Amino acid sequence: MLTLYYAPNTCALAAHLALEHAGADYKAVRLDFSKSEQRSPEYLKVNPKGRVPALVSERGVLTETPALLQFIAQSFPKAQLAPLDDPWALAKANEFNSYLCSTVHVNHAHKGRGYRWSDDPAAHESMKAKVAQNMGDCFELIEREMVRGHWVLGEKLSICDFYLFTIVQWLPGDGVDPSRFAKVSQLAHAVRELPATQRVLAA
Amino acid sequence: MLTLYYAPNTCALAAHLALEHAGADYKAVRLDFSKSEQRSPEYLKVNPKGRVPALVSERGVLTETPALLQFIAQSFPKAQLAPLDDPWALAKANEFNSYLCSTVHVNHAHKGRGYRWSDDPAAHESMKAKVAQNMGDCFELIEREMVRGHWVLGEKLSICDFYLFTIVQWLPGDGVDPSRFAKVSQLAHAVRELPATQRVLAA
Ligand SMILES: N[C@@H](CCC(=O)N[C@@H](CS)C(=O)NCC(=O)O)C(=O)O
Ligand SMILES: N[C@@H](CCC(=O)N[C@@H](CS)C(=O)NCC(=O)O)C(=O)O
Repeated sequence: MLTLYYAPNTCALAAHLALEHAGADYKAVRLDFSKSEQRSPEYLKVNPKGRVPALVSERGVLTETPALLQFIAQSFPKAQLAPLDDPWALAKANEFNSYLCSTVHVNHAHKGRGYRWSDDPAAHESMKAKVAQNMGDCFELIEREMVRGHWVLGEKLSICDFYLFTIVQWLPGDGVDPSRFAKVSQLAHAVRELPATQRVLAA
Repeated sequence: MLTLYYAPNTCALAAHLALEHAGADYKAVRLDFSKSEQRSPEYLKVNPKGRVPALVSERGVLTETPALLQFIAQSFPKAQLAPLDDPWALAKANEFNSYLCSTVHVNHAHKGRGYRWSDDPAAHESMKAKVAQNMGDCFELIEREMVRGHWVLGEKLSICDFYLFTIVQWLPGDGVDPSRFAKVSQLAHAVRELPATQRVLAA
């Protein structure tokens, strides 16, 4: 049995969606960030980074969204959530997920987590002020260069769509209107309509 | 034939080392950042993100270090640079690489690339001032929680070692003394001694 540690409205939604769409047998454990539960001594034993997501299996603990997503796709191959048999195609999926993780998510984090990179409150304000522009620029690139068809990878729903859907949810709060991006918007709408997505969002 | 676009002293060294250690047939094309070649119209056609590394194959262009590293390991399985037959072990390798990419590399980038996240020169200075602390904190976690043996994954050299070696090179410039981290230091020393590493560093 797999256990996913998550918090609402975080990047952990991507792995949560992947588990549900894969038909995995899993338990989801919710952390309350308003009580700083991600920094509690108990949770730091699970994930010393003090972040979500974390996925616990009988082999140990796994963190980092791109790693979780490929692991879930490989563990439930029947769900066909990644092009597992083609190293180049799999690399293109990982490229997309790595970009979301290392660039897009990081740009978003400068809105509320500026204290990670500076001790100066004025700097935090100036970081906040740039988030809408940075997120808009990233999504222009995603719309123009990265979404290859109805879904991110073209014809087939994949882990990349769950991750993109997750970050699209942050855009309005980041001051970016998602309707600027036609392909991304229709894709996010299509992910939302899927029954497995509805089950996760209802939970 | 593979073509790697790189620049000296960047994260592209990780993929460069992986290609050389894998015995790949590849060409390395050097960009000169002092001439902003990564933003030239020609290079933006290769990689619209304006960054290195980028790997060109007959299938197209691949970016993002963690994606390149797994692709190289899968393309040259005889070199055994990743635990390809065990999805959990592979996920743990990807977790490590994703952490370097999304957290450690990003912390380092706040030294010289603060303009990505703020338009205020005073904010850039305050970001620079925090880099040594953040990089030190990351490497304490890497030393304590992530390096599992002689190499990152334990008994076997892997793509994770090339990526860690690459980022260790940045520590002195970031104001962090690598000798604080005994396991990391011996690992970086061991990577440096390997003949394939020597060939890349000499090039
Ligand atoms: N690179 C990690 C980042 C994880 C991360 O930053 N998670 C955020 C939520 S989106 C978090 O747990 N933040 C809690 C905190 O900073 O205290 C991943 O992609 O999984
Ligand atoms: N997430 C990317 C980051 C690539 C990246 O930021 N590369 C840097 C060199 S370490 C770069 O090309 N910087 C050029 C610039 O910012 O103009 C990866 O891991 O490959």
